[in-house]
Amino acid sequence: MSAEPRSSLELGPESAAPDGIVYRVPSPVEAHTSFHEISEAAAAHRAGGGQIVVVQGLGFVGSAVAAAVASATDAEGRPLHYVVGVDLPSPESYWKVAKINEGSPPFRSPDPELAELFRGAVRERGNLRATTCEEAYALADVVVVDVHLDVENRVAERADEIRVGLEGFQSALRVVGRHMPADALVLIETTVPMGTCERIALPILREERARRGIQEPVLLANAYERVMPGPAYVDSIRSLSRTFAGIDQESAERAKAFLKTVIDTDGHPLWQLEDTVSSELGKLLENSYRSVNIAFIHEWTLLAEQIGVNLFEVVDSIRVRKGTHDNMRYPGFGVGGYCLTKDSLLAQWSAAHLFGADAVLEMTLSALRTNYEMPLHTFDLVEELAETVAGKTIAVLGVSYLAGVADTRSSPTEILVDRLLEAGAGVRVHDPLVTMWYERPEIEVLQDLSSALTGADGVVLAVPHDPYLALTAQELLEHLSPHAFVVDAQDIVSDEKARALHEGGRRVVGVGKGHWRTRGYQSTA
Amino acid sequence: MSAEPRSSLELGPESAAPDGIVYRVPSPVEAHTSFHEISEAAAAHRAGGGQIVVVQGLGFVGSAVAAAVASATDAEGRPLHYVVGVDLPSPESYWKVAKINEGSPPFRSPDPELAELFRGAVRERGNLRATTCEEAYALADVVVVDVHLDVENRVAERADEIRVGLEGFQSALRVVGRHMPADALVLIETTVPMGTCERIALPILREERARRGIQEPVLLANAYERVMPGPAYVDSIRSLSRTFAGIDQESAERAKAFLKTVIDTDGHPLWQLEDTVSSELGKLLENSYRSVNIAFIHEWTLLAEQIGVNLFEVVDSIRVRKGTHDNMRYPGFGVGGYCLTKDSLLAQWSAAHLFGADAVLEMTLSALRTNYEMPLHTFDLVEELAETVAGKTIAVLGVSYLAGVADTRSSPTEILVDRLLEAGAGVRVHDPLVTMWYERPEIEVLQDLSSALTGADGVVLAVPHDPYLALTAQELLEHLSPHAFVVDAQDIVSDEKARALHEGGRRVVGVGKGHWRTRGYQSTA
Repeated sequence: MSAEPRSSLELGPESAAPDGIVYRVPSPVEAHTSFHEISEAAAAHRAGGGQIVVVQGLGFVGSAVAAAVASATDAEGRPLHYVVGVDLPSPESYWKVAKINEGSPPFRSPDPELAELFRGAVRERGNLRATTCEEAYALADVVVVDVHLDVENRVAERADEIRVGLEGFQSALRVVGRHMPADALVLIETTVPMGTCERIALPILREERARRGIQEPVLLANAYERVMPGPAYVDSIRSLSRTFAGIDQESAERAKAFLKTVIDTDGHPLWQLEDTVSSELGKLLENSYRSVNIAFIHEWTLLAEQIGVNLFEVVDSIRVRKGTHDNMRYPGFGVGGYCLTKDSLLAQWSAAHLFGADAVLEMTLSALRTNYEMPLHTFDLVEELAETVAGKTIAVLGVSYLAGVADTRSSPTEILVDRLLEAGAGVRVHDPLVTMWYERPEIEVLQDLSSALTGADGVVLAVPHDPYLALTAQELLEHLSPHAFVVDAQDIVSDEKARALHEGGRRVVGVGKGHWRTRGYQSTA
Repeated sequence: MSAEPRSSLELGPESAAPDGIVYRVPSPVEAHTSFHEISEAAAAHRAGGGQIVVVQGLGFVGSAVAAAVASATDAEGRPLHYVVGVDLPSPESYWKVAKINEGSPPFRSPDPELAELFRGAVRERGNLRATTCEEAYALADVVVVDVHLDVENRVAERADEIRVGLEGFQSALRVVGRHMPADALVLIETTVPMGTCERIALPILREERARRGIQEPVLLANAYERVMPGPAYVDSIRSLSRTFAGIDQESAERAKAFLKTVIDTDGHPLWQLEDTVSSELGKLLENSYRSVNIAFIHEWTLLAEQIGVNLFEVVDSIRVRKGTHDNMRYPGFGVGGYCLTKDSLLAQWSAAHLFGADAVLEMTLSALRTNYEMPLHTFDLVEELAETVAGKTIAVLGVSYLAGVADTRSSPTEILVDRLLEAGAGVRVHDPLVTMWYERPEIEVLQDLSSALTGADGVVLAVPHDPYLALTAQELLEHLSPHAFVVDAQDIVSDEKARALHEGGRRVVGVGKGHWRTRGYQSTA
């Protein structure tokens, strides 16, 4: 009778991947047993002159980095590195370990090269394995840290309103310090607050190593990732210039030597900065710049709509100024993803909490708030045409935060949908790429466009996925009720289609499309 | 006895050019007499198939535009246009008319082509003349409006705090309407608030023409200038893509035909927008974007200094990202000139006062305030090293707002100097290009660098003019008192020179140069 609960405990908890497949999290004993294999393969690789790289954290970036590192070869095509990916034996994380060991990317990507990378490394060359075993760090020549560092409160106005979840990051580094060889390099690739290497990671590593009697200087460097989700995802890991810095000369040299094996440095030279604070700052500044440029155009979007101007056309006419204005952003629906929505907060938090500096990134933080509010402007447009949103059925097309990808992290659609639901609307959500909405699992994501559109009172085109761009005015007119309206949040509907919709009796408004108002498209024809 | 005052009245007032030469403003009779010549030359030109272009307003841009239009030729090298420049018979303006008729540019420019342009048009081809006679507009096929439109209050937070000096612009257009031929095109090139063509210029022109019995539709268009002061000034008039729009189809066609004769449209195609509101908005958006990008980096400059980072190096490492980040600005001293300091205000003013829109360009206006405050940060650095500024002698190197030019309009140096004087400092000002500081004529601008430096308690390097960049550490050490300090506001002092200055006992700080603080350069060695 007592056997059942014990057996259930021994089986361990389950870990469900986004594709619905459920894996059983191995017990420590099971993990240790399977790690034995990894350890032997690693030793054989090192005996052949290669290096062992351990990647900590197998999230969206870490898993791809592990596969990219495993794909590095010498002139004869032999793998340079044996790569071990490590993540936690938890229901939230284990499925990534399982996927990788099957030879598959844990995350969907529109880049076909990603799946190829995992297949080649795991099934063909056998130089990539994942594990939950902490002993893996003991094998490392290089530990690449890709552990998440989450931040809360996108609308913070002051440093004291920003909450950085450092605990997981700190305990991850503690585990590294507890197991790493004395002369391994720790390379932090996670986006971190300035000062993380010197003021957070270094003391932890020193302390843990000292407990083990290691007195040698810690080799520690920072090299932030510039990955871009999309069809060239793998390329964005290997073929973008990388910036790095070490806490001392030797750390910098070691980081440089490692990065050279992974990055195509011929066309994309490495850029060494004076210290890790500069390198950490670089990433945050880079993303903050983008975020501010997006927020800037939003306030001109509201103006353009009010004075009847087609802001897309005006931006196009300005972007001809190469080198000064060609990165001007277009009107849109908002900013999502893991980086642009939080990196500025890390900078402000660091200034106050790690450096005691009183500098206030006022414009930078206000941009974050503006970007957060962008989908609420789309809500305002819905409300304008619906008169009252309560009781209406609104179809929202697009859940991911970027066209062509299935990534839904911090998607602006979530902000819009929440607001619609709060206002009493019935919401239908459609996305051709997202089958399960990870952040809002209670909301069904329709896969059939015609059932999303049919009978809706209003349609919001939120993400410029190909199938939405391909929709003809005729198709829209066929599916939409005679009284239905269309809100184009992302320049998905051409002027020609808008006119056809208007002539077909449908009201149409668009973010940044003031000229549609001048033409009266927001009213019934 | 009564002859003397009458003769003195007949002589008219004097008009002093910035080079010190004084011209006598001609009486209306004199002006009319000399206009007779212009009128005959214009008639001869038209008889040969050419067009008459009248440029209204001979300021920094208008005068150069007049010369550029006069340089347009047909395939055989014959001048396409006879150009008449018109400005007011006032002490403030007449000298520009006089200079042009001498065959000289009224404003100094580092671009040698500008002087050549005036010489060729006035002395060789004889197809450019200037006058104060309003009858000139009666000759026009095209009237190009380049009349100033000044704006006050760079630190406005709301539309109602912005004052736009429309009166001069309105009365200038009234004069045009009073004289222009019925079928002449009026092309507004001045940077104006959105809606100016349709809501300000059009009613005035209609009214004045109606008084003369002209009922034909007004031909009116907008084509904003993108001139850039500097060594390629003339090129920036002729070889930058131009955006334009007309109030109707015919106006747009006429504007296009004219611009094609002046602009090198092969490499720089014209961009026609849907309406003049869009075109007017384009210029304001374009300059606001630049201004926001400058303000953005300023708040990161303050942060970088506080946490010891060399922000120049970090920006360089980010600018490798072509197409998205390569226009990131560097830390600096502030923003000057006629456009970036005011154009955003025109947009906000127009939204409220011409369109009754409630859109608030919050980030855009806050950027203007930030940029205004940038030189005050340099003051803070001076104060930090001087401890107390009162009674100290501070040498400020650079008065113009841009390296290599003599233009002092809205120069950030003025803001710094005012603040220094207010704090009780003795101020010496030097500039290799500015002989007379037009906005602050009571302040002498030294031309001799060594006398500016010798005995000063502190030196501010404010503008990266060549002679300042060429200063060696040895030269600085020789001139500076042993207790003197150096504030580098514009990346003029290299790291190597800063080290040499510090080793020579001088304290050194730099805007955006946090690493100099880490190295202790702000203290005595």
